[in-house]
Amino acid sequence: MENFVYYNPVRILFGEGKIAEIGHYVPKGMKVMMTYGGGSIKKNGVYDQVMKALTGTDVVEFGGIEPNPHYETLMKAVETARREGVGFLLAVGGGSVIDGTKFIAAAVGYEGEDPWNIVAKGTPVKAAMPLAAVLTLPATGSEMNCGAVITRESTREKLAFHCPLVFPRFSVMDPTVTYSLPKRQLANGVVDTFVHVMEQYYTMTEHTEIQDRFSEGILRTLVAIGPRIISADTPDYQDRANFMWAATMGLNGLIAVGVVEDWATHQIGHELTAFHGLDHGVTLAIVLPGVMEATKEHRRRKLLQFGERVWGIDPTAADAAEQAIARTERFFNSLGVKTRLGDYGVGMETIERIERRFRDRGRYAVGGIDDVNVDNVKAILVSRL
Amino acid sequence: MENFVYYNPVRILFGEGKIAEIGHYVPKGMKVMMTYGGGSIKKNGVYDQVMKALTGTDVVEFGGIEPNPHYETLMKAVETARREGVGFLLAVGGGSVIDGTKFIAAAVGYEGEDPWNIVAKGTPVKAAMPLAAVLTLPATGSEMNCGAVITRESTREKLAFHCPLVFPRFSVMDPTVTYSLPKRQLANGVVDTFVHVMEQYYTMTEHTEIQDRFSEGILRTLVAIGPRIISADTPDYQDRANFMWAATMGLNGLIAVGVVEDWATHQIGHELTAFHGLDHGVTLAIVLPGVMEATKEHRRRKLLQFGERVWGIDPTAADAAEQAIARTERFFNSLGVKTRLGDYGVGMETIERIERRFRDRGRYAVGGIDDVNVDNVKAILVSRL
Repeated sequence: MENFVYYNPVRILFGEGKIAEIGHYVPKGMKVMMTYGGGSIKKNGVYDQVMKALTGTDVVEFGGIEPNPHYETLMKAVETARREGVGFLLAVGGGSVIDGTKFIAAAVGYEGEDPWNIVAKGTPVKAAMPLAAVLTLPATGSEMNCGAVITRESTREKLAFHCPLVFPRFSVMDPTVTYSLPKRQLANGVVDTFVHVMEQYYTMTEHTEIQDRFSEGILRTLVAIGPRIISADTPDYQDRANFMWAATMGLNGLIAVGVVEDWATHQIGHELTAFHGLDHGVTLAIVLPGVMEATKEHRRRKLLQFGERVWGIDPTAADAAEQAIARTERFFNSLGVKTRLGDYGVGMETIERIERRFRDRGRYAVGGIDDVNVDNVKAILVSRL
Repeated sequence: MENFVYYNPVRILFGEGKIAEIGHYVPKGMKVMMTYGGGSIKKNGVYDQVMKALTGTDVVEFGGIEPNPHYETLMKAVETARREGVGFLLAVGGGSVIDGTKFIAAAVGYEGEDPWNIVAKGTPVKAAMPLAAVLTLPATGSEMNCGAVITRESTREKLAFHCPLVFPRFSVMDPTVTYSLPKRQLANGVVDTFVHVMEQYYTMTEHTEIQDRFSEGILRTLVAIGPRIISADTPDYQDRANFMWAATMGLNGLIAVGVVEDWATHQIGHELTAFHGLDHGVTLAIVLPGVMEATKEHRRRKLLQFGERVWGIDPTAADAAEQAIARTERFFNSLGVKTRLGDYGVGMETIERIERRFRDRGRYAVGGIDDVNVDNVKAILVSRL
């Protein structure tokens, strides 16, 4: 285990009916800007629940934050927040809305010339507007972490930033708000959570007993409930609750303590989204089996542990590593997610552009471990055609 | 899963050498009262490390906080803190020192007549002095929660209180500081952690997939490393690190979310300590097998799950429940902890006093589930003679 600092002050309000309590946690006397996406919250009743809970509070709305939230859109929200004298941000949506709202929080008081530098150059954020979240789509863990991924439409760049000042003050997680989600979004959420865990677990750090067991526990939970969630005609509250909590635990920092993380699959996946607009979850389902195959010798110990503890594969079998990879890909397929680039019309041209982009960044390793790097990223993607 | 609110803002500084960093986290310009126990920190170098890290800070010392910290001692510390104009408390020790320091933090600004009411009557605490901890003995989880157990020597009462204002601002966990601990204290710490997890896991709440997997992960880790820690001639850093983190995760609120907790074993164990001064961990090792036996029908589903996932016991075996209980008791024994009241000279007289005390409190259930109650607590203890 490596040395670490762990800190996560997000208050979680979990369960059916919890949206009604947010009035107690929003600071009094502040103008609130409620941010949201394409408007599904107006159809499924979440918007009404939030507005009712905020009765007596001055609320400004900013809707239209898109999946893979655009810098260009978010800067309009920054203008609105400044013009309206907003003091508190309430993100109502999935990871894109929450990520976007974190960027708004950091950019609204940003003193440098170009707020894009927060993302592009990692310029330190010295102050941020307080924010909170009402989660509608379990997937990214953004409701309980201080990271965000932002896309600049004009340059097709998709980049992340982290800053303790953008931890949500509180996040509401009501499993019933997921009932109206399309199955495609649920499947993407299951894949996203699975791969988040793998990026922190399928690594080279040894002697991380608790972190490993927790990671395996989340993975086994997803394996058990994921297909049920996708196939159920009527949503099951407990399955949705367990999925929602699994997604949060998958990326709130806890399983990453003391570990050298990877994130190669996300790095490559982000490029597929940037060039082709593929769903984030889909890109991860395509890329992960390729990354596992390319790293199966170097990370063999962990891959066999994963196979044994998550899939029940005998680690002494000659093909134990291959079985573990195949089971993982079949799991994604069982959720209705196709896992080949060809399934989405992506070919060699894009693969070569992605390789060039990684070379241009001047770093050898693609993720946190250099067994995925500028020299094998092309082969990994070719293996996924 | 039940609805829940989760909040834990404790910053953890984990790893060898982390004590040197505390100067960055103690607020500037405040007089710090450093609290500790019997003085072992002066022998093992921890005292010197802390003092060096606090160079330039005005430090008052309050030593002599005993195991099962006494209200009477702590009130002397409150006087010292008031007299010296202390603004920040730094607990350097195990759970008793940290628990005691939480009480000092709450009592120093207490406006009611008798600070004992914080514990005895659960009188709300409206303000508390900020505190932090340097942990020396992994066991209680106090370094990352807002609970404390205090003993009133004059009346032989041992009672708990919880208050978000006494979360440590930060806690330092350096596994090397455990190297000088006697094996008895290490064994007690392993048992204490195991039973903390059981009190939150071996319950009646269903559909808590993540909490169950996390709990089982902590238990399996203890089962794997506990005996190694006790038998090793030379301390192993990684084993100590994993044990330390396991103990924290066992009682920082995480595995308790959405669960109806029990704590019957602790309730009964506290009485054994109050009347006989037995080590806390020892009392738990004595009582838990009796509680499991008494509840094995009512909580059968969870007991079989525990047996299967922690001990690998076939849940379809006719004696699967009994095997799970026997394996648990043997595990405690394997750490060198004896698990019978007779081993400690405790007999019927004490059992009857304990039964009377529970009856006098006027509550039927002893813990959070009423399958352990005033009508069977005597039989449970008799079964442990």
